[in-house]
Amino acid sequence: MIVAEVSIAPFGVGTSLSRYVKEAVKALRASGLKVTPCPMGTVLEASDLASIFKAVERAHDAVRAAGGERISITLKVDARYDKDASAEEKLRSIGEL
Amino acid sequence: MIVAEVSIAPFGVGTSLSRYVKEAVKALRASGLKVTPCPMGTVLEASDLASIFKAVERAHDAVRAAGGERISITLKVDARYDKDASAEEKLRSIGEL
Amino acid sequence: MIVAEVSIAPFGVGTSLSRYVKEAVKALRASGLKVTPCPMGTVLEASDLASIFKAVERAHDAVRAAGGERISITLKVDARYDKDASAEEKLRSIGEL
Amino acid sequence: MIVAEVSIAPFGVGTSLSRYVKEAVKALRASGLKVTPCPMGTVLEASDLASIFKAVERAHDAVRAAGGERISITLKVDARYDKDASAEEKLRSIGEL
Repeated sequence: MIVAEVSIAPFGVGTSLSRYVKEAVKALRASGLKVTPCPMGTVLEASDLASIFKAVERAHDAVRAAGGERISITLKVDARYDKDASAEEKLRSIGEL
Repeated sequence: MIVAEVSIAPFGVGTSLSRYVKEAVKALRASGLKVTPCPMGTVLEASDLASIFKAVERAHDAVRAAGGERISITLKVDARYDKDASAEEKLRSIGEL
Repeated sequence: MIVAEVSIAPFGVGTSLSRYVKEAVKALRASGLKVTPCPMGTVLEASDLASIFKAVERAHDAVRAAGGERISITLKVDARYDKDASAEEKLRSIGEL
Repeated sequence: MIVAEVSIAPFGVGTSLSRYVKEAVKALRASGLKVTPCPMGTVLEASDLASIFKAVERAHDAVRAAGGERISITLKVDARYDKDASAEEKLRSIGEL
């Protein structure tokens, strides 16, 4: 199970980025993966890394289509093959759910 | 308002990290800041950057005290001076709350 | 032009990670992209985002093949469509080359 | 030994960020730490975490003073207590120096 978090934002469009983040989240959801928006990025869950990258590429394309001329992406991935830990189980394991 | 997300984890202690993450979150909470654990990191809110750094230092110290010999920290900060946007307002602005 | 930086490391294999980082860098180089190892990550340059992701996937696969059971990936991407800025030009623009 | 990499950039000032990155690097250098600008961030070396945070705070303040109204910071830290590995030794250990 792969759990990841991505932030995508364009430079050069002002300090309010919500319009672009909305487009990115919509594109991530359209990928069919489990998607959970969090305050500093959107959490994605997939069975393989390629699906995560495909979803992030769609989100990038959506921000580009919305007018982003310089797009910053930060992606963190936790790829576990020792056990099948979802985002929810990660929180449960530290006593937060 | 500063919104940040931090992940702290030790290498060299096996693949299960929840014991260390719990210690880190406990130390972050002890800092007095608003703390929200998320699947890929813990969100912090503060009025200034120094308070964020002080909290992360405590969390690092807690993981060190728990036996971490090589500690990896990833920190993302969104420091806004144009408006007072909390973590909750960030989610609300993209229609997710 | 897309400039990116990736760090890939497995948890649970001890505190010395150089064997795994070497495999990752070798796989990144095999992708055919321009690859520059830096102290905290490896810089990649490509004309499109998909090539970056393909290279990172190969690097992940190499760390997996080397025995990584829980693999952490951090990827930062600077995707510019306003001008064609290479990694070298980024350093030159701040007077560092 | 702590090796870290920081990227600092303001949103809302256009797509060209070199003016701000220059100010940030100048402030990092003024901290007295060993500072190495790389294409996707600036590498810092210090004997303790607090010195890293102090330097990043100065860099943030410099970008704020230069007019940044919304400042994004990404910081990665590798804090090793098992051995004394500098940024140079990290590269040497993977055969890149």
